[in-house]
Amino acid sequence: MALLIVAPKKDVTEWVEGVREASRDIDVRVWPASGDPDDIEVALVWNHPEGSLTQFRNLQLISSMGAGIDHVLKDQQLPKNVPVTRVVGESLTTNMSNYIMMAVLQYHKRFLKYLSDKENKQWNQNHAPEIPVSIGILGLGVLGQDVAKKLSDLGFNVCGYSNSRKELPGVRSYAGDEELDEFLSHVNILVCLLPLTSKTENFLNLDLFKKMKKGSYLINVARGNHLVEEDLLEALRLKMLSGAFLDVFRKEPLPRNHPFWEHPDIMMTPHIASITNIEDAIPLIVENYNRVIKGKPLLNEVDMKREY
Amino acid sequence: MALLIVAPKKDVTEWVEGVREASRDIDVRVWPASGDPDDIEVALVWNHPEGSLTQFRNLQLISSMGAGIDHVLKDQQLPKNVPVTRVVGESLTTNMSNYIMMAVLQYHKRFLKYLSDKENKQWNQNHAPEIPVSIGILGLGVLGQDVAKKLSDLGFNVCGYSNSRKELPGVRSYAGDEELDEFLSHVNILVCLLPLTSKTENFLNLDLFKKMKKGSYLINVARGNHLVEEDLLEALRLKMLSGAFLDVFRKEPLPRNHPFWEHPDIMMTPHIASITNIEDAIPLIVENYNRVIKGKPLLNEVDMKREY
Repeated sequence: MALLIVAPKKDVTEWVEGVREASRDIDVRVWPASGDPDDIEVALVWNHPEGSLTQFRNLQLISSMGAGIDHVLKDQQLPKNVPVTRVVGESLTTNMSNYIMMAVLQYHKRFLKYLSDKENKQWNQNHAPEIPVSIGILGLGVLGQDVAKKLSDLGFNVCGYSNSRKELPGVRSYAGDEELDEFLSHVNILVCLLPLTSKTENFLNLDLFKKMKKGSYLINVARGNHLVEEDLLEALRLKMLSGAFLDVFRKEPLPRNHPFWEHPDIMMTPHIASITNIEDAIPLIVENYNRVIKGKPLLNEVDMKREY
Repeated sequence: MALLIVAPKKDVTEWVEGVREASRDIDVRVWPASGDPDDIEVALVWNHPEGSLTQFRNLQLISSMGAGIDHVLKDQQLPKNVPVTRVVGESLTTNMSNYIMMAVLQYHKRFLKYLSDKENKQWNQNHAPEIPVSIGILGLGVLGQDVAKKLSDLGFNVCGYSNSRKELPGVRSYAGDEELDEFLSHVNILVCLLPLTSKTENFLNLDLFKKMKKGSYLINVARGNHLVEEDLLEALRLKMLSGAFLDVFRKEPLPRNHPFWEHPDIMMTPHIASITNIEDAIPLIVENYNRVIKGKPLLNEVDMKREY
């Protein structure tokens, strides 16, 4: 029995060492040096090449190295009936919540306006120092619930939208297709934390922006493919949206000729909102490895029908 | 019996209307149209002229229109033995905490670095996305305790410093002159929320900066006179501090030739971190007015020895 890391573009040294330190009993291998393919029972993957897992007949677990599993499910030749798990550690959640709160607070407190005033040596108090905000969280999984609760604790009006209704103190929960429009009508900051699935791709489009309050603000920290980028530009042109804070893009790194770079109402960061912390991830992976051996239920298993 | 508003540079229309709406029984007057000075038992003040309160022989309460009372106590002819109260409303506290959290988070998440990367069309992930922070709150009154708790809830390491030790879950409390150095040695973000008193004027100086971790960050949201401004410039020059986020200045509006305007490591806002909300303040003022009548203990009374 062996664990195989398949992450062609990643330096996996720390992962290998981490798993070995956590458990000497695990035979860790790194693709393409897989050894006997019949030994491989667990695959730890990040953007594995299409079809590269088909040769492992004894595979019993495919674990994503991060919170996202869209990179796993996009493999058309993904072995069927092998459970897929993901990693959501505490620091990943904390970092994501802090990023979103920074994005919300800098908008609410007009950071960029005051920065521009400073550059122009303008002492200007002539407007309300805060933009009133009502925040909607798209996706109420582990990350969405954490940030919804924290924003609510800061005194903000927060609601959430997800497939199934959630019980969260202080946070109004909307669920299902039929409640989406009402959810959108209440918010002027929309935070996208959706998983990327066939249903949520292109979710952030002109049609959706139209249903929000005029001049709303968009924060996307999920996946670039959630957003129809031309629609964002159009919505900003029409003043339907007042701005956006983006961490993810359809093509990363963002090409140098992309219009987002020079857009004054788009703030962006290079997909750093929250990075999987190896120290958090290793114990979860080792735990699932042991659960495979013992035939126990897995942690953070993906529902393949929902795709998250 | 009458309430007199003494706030020469303020448009007090909303205050007059607010008090009248809240209680028809209160005879509200606006300085200098004070009427018979012997009627005045309560003065509601903001930067009242030196000596202007001496003529009111029956004065029983001087209420600041805001959280600060330094503008009251600086009057050398302030009537003795008349209690002074201040106003700390819920939204003042919330706004202040949100401002401080924005200042902390934008530093922690390197907002200005990513903004500059965007301006230079640089997709640069080559460093840790977060600066590790350990936050020290100077002053653990209503505002300090609120933000300390909220920052701690976000997962940050937070400690506080005040005259007397406070019991706050998750927040280490240092107190008294003898524990200041130890407090400072633990923090790399210092948030000043001190009241301005004869003891705390010029508190933020080179001597204090030396005791913090090298490259610390300063946030001042209290009063401009807490900070020795030349010492901040010197500490930045020496890389003793890495930056500062300032809302208050010794002279406001900040003069156009002031070196802070062009300093790349100083971010600033024009004293807007938290503004007294009239709707919050009026009920507190009316309540204290009624307590004067009934001879009951006042809310938010200032300890004249401590000056806060």
